[in-house]
Amino acid sequence: MTDVNDSAVPPPTLRRYKLTIAYDGSQFHGWQKQEPPNAEPLRTVAGVVEATIARVLKQRVNLVGASRTDAGVHAKGQVAQFDAATRLPIERMAEAINSRLPADVEIVTAEVAPPDFDAIQHVTSKCYRYRIFNTPRRPLGIRHMVYHFWHGLDVERMNDAAARLVGTHDFEGFASAGHNRLTNGSTINACQDEERGDGPPVARGDEKHSGVSGDGFLYNMVRIIAGTLIEVGRGRFEPTRIDEILASRDRAHAGPTVEAAGLCLEWIAYRQQAM
Amino acid sequence: MTDVNDSAVPPPTLRRYKLTIAYDGSQFHGWQKQEPPNAEPLRTVAGVVEATIARVLKQRVNLVGASRTDAGVHAKGQVAQFDAATRLPIERMAEAINSRLPADVEIVTAEVAPPDFDAIQHVTSKCYRYRIFNTPRRPLGIRHMVYHFWHGLDVERMNDAAARLVGTHDFEGFASAGHNRLTNGSTINACQDEERGDGPPVARGDEKHSGVSGDGFLYNMVRIIAGTLIEVGRGRFEPTRIDEILASRDRAHAGPTVEAAGLCLEWIAYRQQAM
Repeated sequence: MTDVNDSAVPPPTLRRYKLTIAYDGSQFHGWQKQEPPNAEPLRTVAGVVEATIARVLKQRVNLVGASRTDAGVHAKGQVAQFDAATRLPIERMAEAINSRLPADVEIVTAEVAPPDFDAIQHVTSKCYRYRIFNTPRRPLGIRHMVYHFWHGLDVERMNDAAARLVGTHDFEGFASAGHNRLTNGSTINACQDEERGDGPPVARGDEKHSGVSGDGFLYNMVRIIAGTLIEVGRGRFEPTRIDEILASRDRAHAGPTVEAAGLCLEWIAYRQQAM
Repeated sequence: MTDVNDSAVPPPTLRRYKLTIAYDGSQFHGWQKQEPPNAEPLRTVAGVVEATIARVLKQRVNLVGASRTDAGVHAKGQVAQFDAATRLPIERMAEAINSRLPADVEIVTAEVAPPDFDAIQHVTSKCYRYRIFNTPRRPLGIRHMVYHFWHGLDVERMNDAAARLVGTHDFEGFASAGHNRLTNGSTINACQDEERGDGPPVARGDEKHSGVSGDGFLYNMVRIIAGTLIEVGRGRFEPTRIDEILASRDRAHAGPTVEAAGLCLEWIAYRQQAM
């Protein structure tokens, strides 16, 4: 004889979930969980979100993010996956997790993913935006969201330089030492600077944004690209400097690694998959 | 015989200075200096700016502000005066003070004012803006600059209500108890709601702003007006409720005092003066 209760309510199946996550990175020690030996774990996005999912779903989960954003870096569209067996309807999952998350991180969408979905391996492209607050005025209430650079920047020169980054190159010259990639070849699909800032407290033209999308980024690559474009925009580098950095693959020829606060992971695109 | 050095460099004359000041109020206990007995002084805008001016000009000054903004309230155009005798050229004063100010407050302009200029008494009108982040999405990086209200708001209804505030009225019904004004009559010149939010991370229409200007405001008046307009916008109050609150002068008929974070002192206008 079978147990009536068991047969009436089959156990939930283990499924793979895909989350799109936004956060203000200024109060986080980056995305990746950090649990130093003999010390309190650091406050990280993955740590906070994973612990919250565990509380909501009442089970341990392993949250794997597509991009290990650094301390202070923001995201509008980080992507992460985890496996869980739960009866919580998918259309209520984002709200259920958000209700327990702190105010500086948010689940934008929660989806059921194919069982073989891989948040890291299946990426086709990512887009970052670097915000430069480009006026002598102070950024005040958004100072943790922008890089304040008060010398004038020539956006046309920056775009001349940015266009030279587009294509498949070895970007070693735009990477910090210590990254562990064997190959540095990747493709930048678009790199463009534009004047922004049209809502209070930002007057039109007060911000310059560097948007860059591509299929892969080396360590600190977007921040070094932004730092190099700033050197071009202020007139210290010629736009052709980009070609020299690419050819030499020498980090020393590029501009500085500008601060994390200006950087935001905008979106991550994935190859189409059958469900 | 006169001292050559003394006659060559006459002592600077005492002059009155007018500052326009912007700040992110989230890390301040309001504008007004607070020095509780037997305790550390609280961090206030007036306290920080006054101490900084004293360091820069190497003399004690008394900074008098036009608006005693509450803890958490922001300003783009606070006005304050002080008297000092200094050789620092006026065109370098803002920069000199700013170089010693923390990142959340800024001198926008410094001017020499007429000796009888009175930052409080000579005000002709002030303008406040109340920012409502009106989407289920979280404000994340600007959460200290807006009031997050996720139910839909009907801006047309709000503007119907707002128009009823314009004119000379007794605004007692829109004031918190405890203000010490003998007369509550003042004139609202304009009160308008608009959809805003056109720069990242805010999508167009994600924000509703209540702008209100007038010749005087009672304690908490702008926050109570905003709270009342929100009740109208969400459908709990009819726009005619404004007339009832004005007629009854009863605070209990108005909406809640919404939080300080959404409020910004935009500008203060003064009567024309001969220099």
